[in-house]
Amino acid sequence: MSMTDEAKRLDAADPLAEYRGRFYMPEGVIYLDGNSLGPLPQATPGRIEEVIRQEWGDGLIRSWNDADWVSAPQRIGAKIAPLIGARPHEVIACDSTSVNIFKLIAAALQMRPDRKVVLSEPGNFPTDIYMIEGLEAQGLAERRLAEADRIEAALDGDVALLMLTHVHYKTGRLHDMKRLTAKAHEAGALVMWDLAHTAGALPVSLNECVPDGDGADFAVGCGYKYFNGGPGAPAFAYVAERHHDDLHQPLTGWFGHAQPFAFSDDYTPAEGVDRLQAGTPPILGLAALEIGVELIAEIGVERLWKKSRALSEFFLRCLKELGIDLPLVSPPNSAERGSQLSFRHEHSYAVSQALIARGIIGDFRDPDILRLGFAPAYLRFADVLDAARQLGEVLGSGEWDRPEFRERAAVT
Amino acid sequence: MSMTDEAKRLDAADPLAEYRGRFYMPEGVIYLDGNSLGPLPQATPGRIEEVIRQEWGDGLIRSWNDADWVSAPQRIGAKIAPLIGARPHEVIACDSTSVNIFKLIAAALQMRPDRKVVLSEPGNFPTDIYMIEGLEAQGLAERRLAEADRIEAALDGDVALLMLTHVHYKTGRLHDMKRLTAKAHEAGALVMWDLAHTAGALPVSLNECVPDGDGADFAVGCGYKYFNGGPGAPAFAYVAERHHDDLHQPLTGWFGHAQPFAFSDDYTPAEGVDRLQAGTPPILGLAALEIGVELIAEIGVERLWKKSRALSEFFLRCLKELGIDLPLVSPPNSAERGSQLSFRHEHSYAVSQALIARGIIGDFRDPDILRLGFAPAYLRFADVLDAARQLGEVLGSGEWDRPEFRERAAVT
Repeated sequence: MSMTDEAKRLDAADPLAEYRGRFYMPEGVIYLDGNSLGPLPQATPGRIEEVIRQEWGDGLIRSWNDADWVSAPQRIGAKIAPLIGARPHEVIACDSTSVNIFKLIAAALQMRPDRKVVLSEPGNFPTDIYMIEGLEAQGLAERRLAEADRIEAALDGDVALLMLTHVHYKTGRLHDMKRLTAKAHEAGALVMWDLAHTAGALPVSLNECVPDGDGADFAVGCGYKYFNGGPGAPAFAYVAERHHDDLHQPLTGWFGHAQPFAFSDDYTPAEGVDRLQAGTPPILGLAALEIGVELIAEIGVERLWKKSRALSEFFLRCLKELGIDLPLVSPPNSAERGSQLSFRHEHSYAVSQALIARGIIGDFRDPDILRLGFAPAYLRFADVLDAARQLGEVLGSGEWDRPEFRERAAVT
Repeated sequence: MSMTDEAKRLDAADPLAEYRGRFYMPEGVIYLDGNSLGPLPQATPGRIEEVIRQEWGDGLIRSWNDADWVSAPQRIGAKIAPLIGARPHEVIACDSTSVNIFKLIAAALQMRPDRKVVLSEPGNFPTDIYMIEGLEAQGLAERRLAEADRIEAALDGDVALLMLTHVHYKTGRLHDMKRLTAKAHEAGALVMWDLAHTAGALPVSLNECVPDGDGADFAVGCGYKYFNGGPGAPAFAYVAERHHDDLHQPLTGWFGHAQPFAFSDDYTPAEGVDRLQAGTPPILGLAALEIGVELIAEIGVERLWKKSRALSEFFLRCLKELGIDLPLVSPPNSAERGSQLSFRHEHSYAVSQALIARGIIGDFRDPDILRLGFAPAYLRFADVLDAARQLGEVLGSGEWDRPEFRERAAVT
């Protein structure tokens, strides 16, 4: 069977095919960057217009109660929870991933007062390891980075927190969440998982990631990637219920107070994850995030994960059939990677720009990675074949080798 | 002249009358709560639809460059700057007021390593003093609260930072920014002004608040009050240029890095206030904020301040004419208060609810304050007279004394 027929067969049999229509996708675009910014759900513009015109415009200040703005962080957290194997009251939507990381590192350090080391790996997503540096400069933390295969060895009695990104942003490589969580707990350390490239893409169970034991302690994740919450959407944070009473984070803002509207001079933390809130919740961003989360919950992460593996496997088959030989940086086994494939090419920035000029939108990661995401809610197998063919043309023709494709933009 | 004629005369002579049409105001509402949540500018829904459908929907990830999302925090900061007497590169729009307060307290403590006290006043807006507590629990700060008339006496050699809200959220009382900044500097302390109830309402000059001396060191402010940026809009932060090189705040996220897209393992702060950014900028919220800030800049804070004083003075005259005798908590001289009037009433919550039921939307502040805001961009003198008359009816008839007006909502 030709690859074209194969793509047709796969698309015809795809149980998620109907969901493509729930997203807006511009003409002529094959979008392989949903792992960076998810596309626009069709329901979002109408909902945001309602929030702006009716809730803000007509309701004005009354909407904090009447439109239940005040509980949006908890309500959306509860919708995210089942998608990451957490209980509804263990997740809250607030602030950015970066800010939530800071809060939870600081909370972990307060829970392990005789330890200062926060262990991560070199090449982890920058904001994660920069946040350790911020606390290090305050004298509160000590940063330790160990390569993936040395992490277990680095888990000594000084480690307060092991903090890793489950799916590596650059390579797509999965960490063994169960094993590492168990090993960290054995060493007396707490664990935080960054689910930026996991949540909404593949199933995880934070509560049960250690068999017959405690689940993960903390997690954070992103609203604008696989949850399709819009550019710079609010993020989320998870804290295992068993830590709720001992959770103390330093960004003690009024929305994390037990009674914000009592306007007391003294801080009394709210119950559980509510105390992770700091300032007034960002209602426009939360409303867009809620639409995206609801859509992903409707499709279901198990089905998404299954199709995303099929898509990336099919892409690799297409490359092989087409004779395109690019070194794969991601694990070759789809069970060991997230919803992306990363390839090495000396001129990967120019290649990614040449592809974008053709409407094949992937991205580049410094210094030489071409990163292609296979978010399965809106991608077709025919798109994947088309992208592979056009990648072959770009590489074969040397089309990428133009000055306009080499010049770096501010955001790459 | 009757009060009705007087209101007509004042409205006819009002140079800001034309701007009322630039805001959406629901039928039957007199909005005296713009100091809590500013109303919807008419231009906002269209702009947000454009951001969502064109920039996000069509542009997808490309809009970080093509729609210049990446520089929105600096661009909006530069538009806020002249409204608070700062230079364009001294202000950035990011995170919430609460989170920005935390960053700047921590930065101040790092700049005064031999001092730990953060001085504020009891009854300051809660989030401000709670953030000191968060750093206190980390062992980094020591909270000291002194009543307004004792602040100067409390400025000893242990004070690293004097942090005050310029316009008191409950009473509207203005602090003497020039005098207190000079006194704090004399004592070797830094100064942060919370401009939540100032920015967009009255003119201040952060750069020149000390004659022949240095201006204020730090400031923060709110996007959703007088800037009409929408519920939970991003906030802003100001740092005087002279501190830019020594500024180190602990929320060292990737967007505050000198080269975020180099994805280095080590944090190198961006120049100046750019290093106050932590996570990915919230584009929907920033886009709405930008519309609100542009509108306020077009009207001008000098004119707004002048009209707001005239409005609140007229309201007090109306009360007098109508024989309504409510104890005024705000300073009686309009030059000494922000754009609000606060009154004491034993049942102020029920009174505020009875007024809201009539479409007169003000608010309540615990325990006994009825707070009425006079945001001048959309309020008419006729509205002010009408509000005074209806307040008289509510108080005179005992209409407020109903169970449904006494029952507290989640957000008051």
